[in-house]
Amino acid sequence: MASMATLFVNTPYHSHSFPKPSSAHFAPVLKLSTHLGSKPRNRQRLRISNGLIEPDGGKLAELFVEESKKGETKKKAAALPRIKLSRIDLQWVHVISEGWSSPLRGFMRESEFLQTLHFNSLRLDDGSVVNMSVPIVLAIDDAQKRRIGQSTRVALVDSDDNLIAILKDIEIFKHHKEERIARTWGTTAPGLPYVDQAITNAGNWLIGGDLEVLEPIKYNDGLDRFRLSPAQLRDEFTKRNADAVFAFQLRNPVHNGHALLMTDTRRRLLEMGYKNPILLLHPLGGYTKADDVPLSWRMKQHEKVLEDGVLDPETTVVSIFPSPMHYAGPTEVQWHAKARINAGANFYIVGRDPAGMDHPTEKRDLYDADHGKKVLSMAPGLERLNILPFKVAAYDKTQGKMAFFDPSRPQDFLFISGTKMRTLARNKENPPEGFMCPNGWKVLVNYYDSLVPADNDKVPEAVPA
Amino acid sequence: MASMATLFVNTPYHSHSFPKPSSAHFAPVLKLSTHLGSKPRNRQRLRISNGLIEPDGGKLAELFVEESKKGETKKKAAALPRIKLSRIDLQWVHVISEGWSSPLRGFMRESEFLQTLHFNSLRLDDGSVVNMSVPIVLAIDDAQKRRIGQSTRVALVDSDDNLIAILKDIEIFKHHKEERIARTWGTTAPGLPYVDQAITNAGNWLIGGDLEVLEPIKYNDGLDRFRLSPAQLRDEFTKRNADAVFAFQLRNPVHNGHALLMTDTRRRLLEMGYKNPILLLHPLGGYTKADDVPLSWRMKQHEKVLEDGVLDPETTVVSIFPSPMHYAGPTEVQWHAKARINAGANFYIVGRDPAGMDHPTEKRDLYDADHGKKVLSMAPGLERLNILPFKVAAYDKTQGKMAFFDPSRPQDFLFISGTKMRTLARNKENPPEGFMCPNGWKVLVNYYDSLVPADNDKVPEAVPA
Repeated sequence: MASMATLFVNTPYHSHSFPKPSSAHFAPVLKLSTHLGSKPRNRQRLRISNGLIEPDGGKLAELFVEESKKGETKKKAAALPRIKLSRIDLQWVHVISEGWSSPLRGFMRESEFLQTLHFNSLRLDDGSVVNMSVPIVLAIDDAQKRRIGQSTRVALVDSDDNLIAILKDIEIFKHHKEERIARTWGTTAPGLPYVDQAITNAGNWLIGGDLEVLEPIKYNDGLDRFRLSPAQLRDEFTKRNADAVFAFQLRNPVHNGHALLMTDTRRRLLEMGYKNPILLLHPLGGYTKADDVPLSWRMKQHEKVLEDGVLDPETTVVSIFPSPMHYAGPTEVQWHAKARINAGANFYIVGRDPAGMDHPTEKRDLYDADHGKKVLSMAPGLERLNILPFKVAAYDKTQGKMAFFDPSRPQDFLFISGTKMRTLARNKENPPEGFMCPNGWKVLVNYYDSLVPADNDKVPEAVPA
Repeated sequence: MASMATLFVNTPYHSHSFPKPSSAHFAPVLKLSTHLGSKPRNRQRLRISNGLIEPDGGKLAELFVEESKKGETKKKAAALPRIKLSRIDLQWVHVISEGWSSPLRGFMRESEFLQTLHFNSLRLDDGSVVNMSVPIVLAIDDAQKRRIGQSTRVALVDSDDNLIAILKDIEIFKHHKEERIARTWGTTAPGLPYVDQAITNAGNWLIGGDLEVLEPIKYNDGLDRFRLSPAQLRDEFTKRNADAVFAFQLRNPVHNGHALLMTDTRRRLLEMGYKNPILLLHPLGGYTKADDVPLSWRMKQHEKVLEDGVLDPETTVVSIFPSPMHYAGPTEVQWHAKARINAGANFYIVGRDPAGMDHPTEKRDLYDADHGKKVLSMAPGLERLNILPFKVAAYDKTQGKMAFFDPSRPQDFLFISGTKMRTLARNKENPPEGFMCPNGWKVLVNYYDSLVPADNDKVPEAVPA
């Protein structure tokens, strides 16, 4: 992936928490935040940042133990009750520790959990509001709760018992699973992938607290160099003198419709007067459901898209977003957007049915395809983010390429669904020329070819995504 | 109910929308509201009200047609597509038209519906936020939608086809029932009373728009004189020179534990320096589930409680809150509190498990008993309201009366659950002396006596509430 590596300088991890003032061309962002309550909380805060958009809460919450204190921390941890982290738990430690969920400083305590479920937002001590739509919680079972007893802190370890972090000032509260699921997904139908994977069999308690993480989370899968933290991304945008950053969240192969959208967005931003808008092409790297294309194959596909010149490496940063996927539609799209604010993006592209999927038990989409962008545009705490709704791209048979759909001549357009695309790739057929760059398509074909079915009939069925 | 009638002057309906400045002793409320967005929306509004707490949105939304325009309105309505209102729909028209749900001006459009479901709050044009936790919507079916066609307004009629209101600038959008239920109740289990009554068999579309209501809604059940509108309540509080108004929502008979709590609240408010705190004893009068004690019996019981001097008529206003009941726990308690702001209350008493009930299919409470007060204390748009959490009252065997529970001597206290209370009344047994005033208890016994079961074994089973 040499071509992708050239998109950013692979800086070693560093723990500064705020991008240095740069020569970037932003107009100063003036933020006046006043509490609306009747109690006289008129402490006005004037925040001026002359660089990228400010992280939620004013400061990236990077939660790593200082080098000089690591020895001491490990020693203390040895005496603490231990909680073994699942793969998804570890991904959340990754997310929290790098500040994607700023101002969170650890797994949610009950007050944060309840505000997330009921309001999709958190009110900070100064009365300001940040978005927070998806519960970021750690479940424990009865036996673990008993073992923790009166301890105020616990050690978090990975599957090999390596110390990952300390969770301190802990609070243990009930894991009301049904309510969590209903309020997050808007359904309790069986078969929601994240629920099956991480909630149904999880413990009946949640443990919140502040995280102290020993080392940045790495996966040693050859892709760690693409996992830039919010601080590293901010550095990169600053270095490139970005005066606008537009984020594109994806968990699917990039076809030329996506590419058209991204290049068109840059064109629109230039027209608006920005001098150097930078695209953050930001595939989700955490847990995805079994029938999504795995991260490693998606990254290979994205590489080809850049090699083939479909996107401009000069104005594109490709990086991996470490969050697990909820498939929670309008609720989750807020999380996807909020995390990108923390990474420095002030524009967010949102499409049809973001973070959606089929209803697990009924023959319909789980979410109204338009709710995602509507909810996003009204979400508390996201007022600073500019939401850019997707235009619908489809294959224009008259031009032989992907183009924005023209409702005056619908007969000229071909809509190629995710299901259709995957069926073609699985059958080693080609899509219409111009749908996807040929080398990107080959990656997809190779992926499906690599799936050795248990028996010849059982290739996993793809669903639109 | 002569004694209750003396609690307030039975003013005829009037449509002024704001209490006149009075000689009340409030310190001016200074409200500085600033939009938090990045776009320069720094239009600051300075609102000063020198009377009761300001209604949400600054002004009570009273939505009645002016006398002089009624003829014309009726004439126009005759040509419009008609929607027949259910009993619960009519209760919502009542609620909206008097301004309990201010600043709503009609049934919710999609943007209000989505904000309610996802954020339990609405953002107003000036950037300020008001609480709104329960969808107030009107469902129509496919045939009604077809009949409405391209009309921009419809006529709403009651079960006898009497014109009730016009709904104008309508917007029709999908009624995603499963999602509405899951996000409002935190469960989709079958057997939720409001769902069975008003959602399951309702149409697959929702129609929002602005209401123009012909006449204040009346029920002709002998209780209309107790149904004071928010404007009428505000007048009453002003006339009484209230300098604090504390609201007590209930849908159950008042026992001496409740009374203790209310008198103790007044004592605390006096200690805080208020000179004339007024209690708004505010039984819910809309739809309740079959095994709740009906409104007419509850009103008789409340009357006896006042006659027997358990509560002081001088400092108590009894009125009926016209809203239907959702039994949606932490979500609904916000609605109960928000509506009372609009009626002039600046203190709200909240107990254990407000608006809760048994889980419809599992042997447990539907909601965590502490979530209601926690969610209420954090709810967006309710910052101006002072939340007064319940102290636990129980029967103190050493004193022979209801008293605040003293954890140092638990053996002295008897907890009498709703189920226990109802079982006693049904069996014509007496509770411990001092649990409820004797005449109030007689009303309860008479109520259960009046229930003629279909066969002798089938008295409706009471549930704790």
